[in-house]
Amino acid sequence: MPYDYLPKLLQPSDSKIVLLVLDGLGGLPIEAGGPTELEAAATPYMDRLASEGCLGQTIPIRAGITPGSGPAHLALFGYDPLEYEVGRGVLEACGVGLDVHLGDIAARGNFCTLDENGLISDRRAGRISSVEAMPAIERLQRIQIPSVELIVRQVKEHRFAVIMRGEGLHPHLNDTDPQRTGAAPLLIQAQQPSAERAAELFNQWVSEAREALTSQSKANGVTLRGFATDPGLPNYAETFGLKAACVAVYPMYRGVSKLVGMDVVPFEGEYPADEFAAVAKAWDDYDFFFIHIKKTDSMGEDGNFEGKARVIESVDAALPALLELNPAVLIVTGDHSTPALLKSHSWHPVPFLLWAPASHLPDSQTQFGERACAHGGLGAFPAMDTMSLALAHAGRLTKYGA
Amino acid sequence: MPYDYLPKLLQPSDSKIVLLVLDGLGGLPIEAGGPTELEAAATPYMDRLASEGCLGQTIPIRAGITPGSGPAHLALFGYDPLEYEVGRGVLEACGVGLDVHLGDIAARGNFCTLDENGLISDRRAGRISSVEAMPAIERLQRIQIPSVELIVRQVKEHRFAVIMRGEGLHPHLNDTDPQRTGAAPLLIQAQQPSAERAAELFNQWVSEAREALTSQSKANGVTLRGFATDPGLPNYAETFGLKAACVAVYPMYRGVSKLVGMDVVPFEGEYPADEFAAVAKAWDDYDFFFIHIKKTDSMGEDGNFEGKARVIESVDAALPALLELNPAVLIVTGDHSTPALLKSHSWHPVPFLLWAPASHLPDSQTQFGERACAHGGLGAFPAMDTMSLALAHAGRLTKYGA
Repeated sequence: MPYDYLPKLLQPSDSKIVLLVLDGLGGLPIEAGGPTELEAAATPYMDRLASEGCLGQTIPIRAGITPGSGPAHLALFGYDPLEYEVGRGVLEACGVGLDVHLGDIAARGNFCTLDENGLISDRRAGRISSVEAMPAIERLQRIQIPSVELIVRQVKEHRFAVIMRGEGLHPHLNDTDPQRTGAAPLLIQAQQPSAERAAELFNQWVSEAREALTSQSKANGVTLRGFATDPGLPNYAETFGLKAACVAVYPMYRGVSKLVGMDVVPFEGEYPADEFAAVAKAWDDYDFFFIHIKKTDSMGEDGNFEGKARVIESVDAALPALLELNPAVLIVTGDHSTPALLKSHSWHPVPFLLWAPASHLPDSQTQFGERACAHGGLGAFPAMDTMSLALAHAGRLTKYGA
Repeated sequence: MPYDYLPKLLQPSDSKIVLLVLDGLGGLPIEAGGPTELEAAATPYMDRLASEGCLGQTIPIRAGITPGSGPAHLALFGYDPLEYEVGRGVLEACGVGLDVHLGDIAARGNFCTLDENGLISDRRAGRISSVEAMPAIERLQRIQIPSVELIVRQVKEHRFAVIMRGEGLHPHLNDTDPQRTGAAPLLIQAQQPSAERAAELFNQWVSEAREALTSQSKANGVTLRGFATDPGLPNYAETFGLKAACVAVYPMYRGVSKLVGMDVVPFEGEYPADEFAAVAKAWDDYDFFFIHIKKTDSMGEDGNFEGKARVIESVDAALPALLELNPAVLIVTGDHSTPALLKSHSWHPVPFLLWAPASHLPDSQTQFGERACAHGGLGAFPAMDTMSLALAHAGRLTKYGA
């Protein structure tokens, strides 16, 4: 842990912390001098919080580094994403709501099309639709291998997730996609001796999969990659002394939260108001709430500047329900930037709003936006400092040294 | 490397990056409330770039640390100067245009005056002039030692550089200047067994030097210090995926560039316009251009506030030639501060201007200067982050993690 000095500074408190993450919040002006998505959005509540509280910018990973969703959230959760890596197989499994336990092996799977010689003629099985892929998924789900449990779940189109659960499994295995057509899928080989059992069992599974899929016209083969297990992240309760809850619509963010030991709060609906209502309902049971809003990122990825601004406005409009709960600390930020201008995640610093009425550092900012955050009292800081700032402002950290 | 995560994120691109370094750019007001050199200079082009782009401040080494030219440039080039040290002998050799290869030993030499007992009566040979020192230099250049090649070049006044080239030479040798008069120059001793051959050969050279210099009235002895070899810096092409060129008037900066694997672009002239013309001519052959302007630093060292402002203006006036080339990223900064007020390098943060039209982070700054940079959108950051920021804005880095 980068913050191994924290656990011994923790002190008990009844104060509540809310970390509200608008995925891909950071944006850019469409034209020079124009507003960003966040600046264009009408956000009276966030602006009030900005006036009362303190702004800053986070660097998600390191200068210039564009984060994926996994590492970006790890950083916000207080873990250095260069030190702790959540493997791609685990993220894929989390993304479809599967739990990956320590010792499990999770992998990303692709259906592919094999020719009569067993060579790949299409690496994505003709980009088969999700509906078309369902019979093939069902066939994979019926495969059994003695001594291990197997879980297969459809992701989307040609993609699926697979988990193998059993004793003595190690995930140091190579990807099997040869990355070109005209070649056979690669055999799975152990990258170290401890992984030999897993290699053998996965090869057996692949071979049974091929038999099970012979009748399929497009999806008659599989490739696997990103073999990984639970990264064994230090537990949230021990690291930060917090009973923590996740309120998220998308399975992947629930999954990453579970990896650090958060409880996932179930709820109906998909709007910010639904998520905030779920927080209100669970308010007495937890110290810390991570709330995840996905659609800011989706709109950014689509290049939809206006749409992203509207999502931000919908979050703002729902904020009173959160504020009524009187959190000791409310943080509003993103995990990374997804400027509509770039239609992708980016490396830019991320707007950060800290509202903690008992102990605000004052700054002179009155609007929540990129330019204001660049002038904020918190300056620019690594995203993985978020948790220690939150704990401090919640009165949950005692003095270091005499 | 602190940036060992970079190489695997590199993606190919045709985008061009220009790093324009005004040596010692950072300054201070002569009187409280007054402008700095950069703020006093009329810089319409840099101000336009500041309005369109984004400002910040770099910390060259660490807070409060005043850098020499070598470490300051290593940081801008992306190498932690606390991790990678370019020895003084190597810097001195680079400074007079000598190439130091891996396995060479380079040292700084001083002429001194020895009395009849061989004790130093003047550690700098009466601060002999460069012209007076020439005959002594020529005598040193004639010395030959079997099995090694020796290169001696005058630096200035009593100073020279010497390189020994051959097999099995290791530079772990002590300085020979006793740091006081009335003492004999120290013998060269190996600091570890592998350096014994080099110690023996250098002692032989010093003894032959003394014989060769007996007829000299002032410069009749030598001391040597800063024994060092090529530090083996990670190569620019491998580390950053860039074919890199250096355009610099002063040999030392060319030398440091060569140590990281840049090509040195030859050109005539010494003015910013000459350097920018050289960049234009070589534009199609490189991905990255490091352009070095020396005179800002020289003026600062001379305490010439106005002169330093005029040099900055001359760079600004020449900028259109660079902008016509349409770089994807143009960075204007310094390697460190050299405030005329202090007449020396200083530890102050350095103004930093990033212009990258495809993906500017907006800030509200409209002038390139110390105060504006303190409010810039990039915040204050380590100078060694410069290269990852440049690569990101040039579209040369892919996403970290899924």
